[in-house]
Amino acid sequence: MRLIGEDELENIAVGSTILGAGGGGDPYVGKLLARQQIREHGPVTMVGLDELADSDQVCFVAGMGAPGVLVEKLPRASEAVRAVQLLQETTGVAITHIAPAEAGGLNAIVPFSAAALGLPVVDADGMGRAFPSLELVTPTLYGGLCTPLAMVDEHGNEMVLRSPSNQWAETIARNVTLASGCVTMTALYQMTGAQAKQWLVPGVLTQAEDLGRLLRESRAAHRDSVEAIVNHRRGALLFTGRVTAVRRANERGWTIGEATITGTGPDQGSSMELRFQNEHLVAVRDGVVVASVPDLIMAMEHETGEPIPAEEIRYGYRVSVVGLPCDHRWRTEAGLAIAGPRAFGYDVDYRPVEEIAARSEVDA
Amino acid sequence: MRLIGEDELENIAVGSTILGAGGGGDPYVGKLLARQQIREHGPVTMVGLDELADSDQVCFVAGMGAPGVLVEKLPRASEAVRAVQLLQETTGVAITHIAPAEAGGLNAIVPFSAAALGLPVVDADGMGRAFPSLELVTPTLYGGLCTPLAMVDEHGNEMVLRSPSNQWAETIARNVTLASGCVTMTALYQMTGAQAKQWLVPGVLTQAEDLGRLLRESRAAHRDSVEAIVNHRRGALLFTGRVTAVRRANERGWTIGEATITGTGPDQGSSMELRFQNEHLVAVRDGVVVASVPDLIMAMEHETGEPIPAEEIRYGYRVSVVGLPCDHRWRTEAGLAIAGPRAFGYDVDYRPVEEIAARSEVDA
Repeated sequence: MRLIGEDELENIAVGSTILGAGGGGDPYVGKLLARQQIREHGPVTMVGLDELADSDQVCFVAGMGAPGVLVEKLPRASEAVRAVQLLQETTGVAITHIAPAEAGGLNAIVPFSAAALGLPVVDADGMGRAFPSLELVTPTLYGGLCTPLAMVDEHGNEMVLRSPSNQWAETIARNVTLASGCVTMTALYQMTGAQAKQWLVPGVLTQAEDLGRLLRESRAAHRDSVEAIVNHRRGALLFTGRVTAVRRANERGWTIGEATITGTGPDQGSSMELRFQNEHLVAVRDGVVVASVPDLIMAMEHETGEPIPAEEIRYGYRVSVVGLPCDHRWRTEAGLAIAGPRAFGYDVDYRPVEEIAARSEVDA
Repeated sequence: MRLIGEDELENIAVGSTILGAGGGGDPYVGKLLARQQIREHGPVTMVGLDELADSDQVCFVAGMGAPGVLVEKLPRASEAVRAVQLLQETTGVAITHIAPAEAGGLNAIVPFSAAALGLPVVDADGMGRAFPSLELVTPTLYGGLCTPLAMVDEHGNEMVLRSPSNQWAETIARNVTLASGCVTMTALYQMTGAQAKQWLVPGVLTQAEDLGRLLRESRAAHRDSVEAIVNHRRGALLFTGRVTAVRRANERGWTIGEATITGTGPDQGSSMELRFQNEHLVAVRDGVVVASVPDLIMAMEHETGEPIPAEEIRYGYRVSVVGLPCDHRWRTEAGLAIAGPRAFGYDVDYRPVEEIAARSEVDA
């Protein structure tokens, strides 16, 4: 158990953007929201999964929608608070802890923006990264149900949904989000402490904080920030180049598109395409998929290591594309069935990103 | 207070299709549903508005979606029952009576299909006709709120919605309906008996029953059925001809399109276009709007007087187009603001359908 104040938040925001794999929402937005709440209500208590009692009641609180719209329409802290209250009113069971659904950017920070609730935040999430659908969480792999799901929007609409499957809940909730103007706040996956300990990805907020600190320190010491991140997470540097084209649209409740990167340095003569649906789904080098979900694919500014969300990548950026290994549960048959490349329409076999790194070394 | 059995239901189904103004869903579907339930649970008690106690609790139960899809996907009686139960569970206030939201076709019958609840049905509705949006009900004119709204679908999704306005509820619920496959069942506008007496259109199910009986009797006596209906409701015969073109699609949760009718007999040389969004919105004669919402526009088979829902009108049908006056509240400024031609994008002044009839007589 420890307290999260403004400094910790700063590192978590940067680090969770790396774990966000392009999505999860702009961390800057989340940071502003949470900082204001922490100033008002004091630092937020964060506890590890192992500190939960089996009888505790945990839920996720998360923004839903297209990050490209979130940049323009700031969610409000009061919406996160209201979503949790609405879920509690629905189940009649008091929630004792809240957790981020995903480690990505805004959504890693959202639980801290609900500081007014006075509930501790759990240092764990349901993905170990960010994903574009609410059923793509580790609880789904254990049969956990996301509903009853509480959803509120900026207009004052409040919805409680019960669905026969997490896929149905995603479909309905995504359409409500679209109708509301592409941004809603949700509280979902209410679970016991015992379930949380089994289902969630432990320590992910601390990992984000470590990544954020590492990035800041490398930069201060004029070390190669990208290399530092790749080594720390045992990942792979996939490509280096300059962004020469971006196609991006807010479609069906997501930010969808692709960025084309023309190789420089060792990658001169090659090009890489990053295809995203909020998060990066595949990295395609010269027409061949070289990395894919569920591993994390992230573009970082070449010089500074600053992670670039998919909704912000622009023509001219000099970037390094890195691949980082995902939580081991996503690499099981059940995990790949819902979060592997085929689940997103790419007919290729999943290959762990470390193997790509190992092979590159052999090639070299 | 009286009992509604299979015979009464038969007349209500036919008559409410006339009041449905092209929409409200296929009454045949509703009749099958309700007949089975009445066989199982016995005749349903129907009470007049004046028989309600002020403290009674009334709600509408209604199918939402595109009638063109309803023809293929039958709603189930259990969904109507569940929607009412879900609303009751949400408000914690027991519902004592149910009422149709609209007098049109399927939706006039839906309350009888919930016979398993053992609740009396109120002989009143919220439109005196059918309309394509859930906020277009007389309670809206009195500031009544449609939410909390309970919604269930065939897949087992259950939703409770609270909205700041009936327009927002329509937007959200319509999108959920789209996501569910274009048909859902709703329970909404929970109101007291006192409110129901002020807000609703009285006697509309009995009116539908009268129309159904009149049609059957005229047909049996080889009298002009269309004329009988027009005279009974003090409406106007707008056009006679043959359907020569129909464009129709299930779009955005509605059945949208238009039917073109080439004049015969006294209308030889002219043509009429009926534009519909579930219900007929305007009747356009030789390019000029001659009748519009909120009045009822209905196509009937020329020979038999059989009302033809907009989702079933087809090339070759010989039809009479009739206009029938709407409930007086729709003709107020507030009524026309939400249900007049401009509310549906037609920049014309509303003219009561009786005036058209009167003018036609002058012309002749």
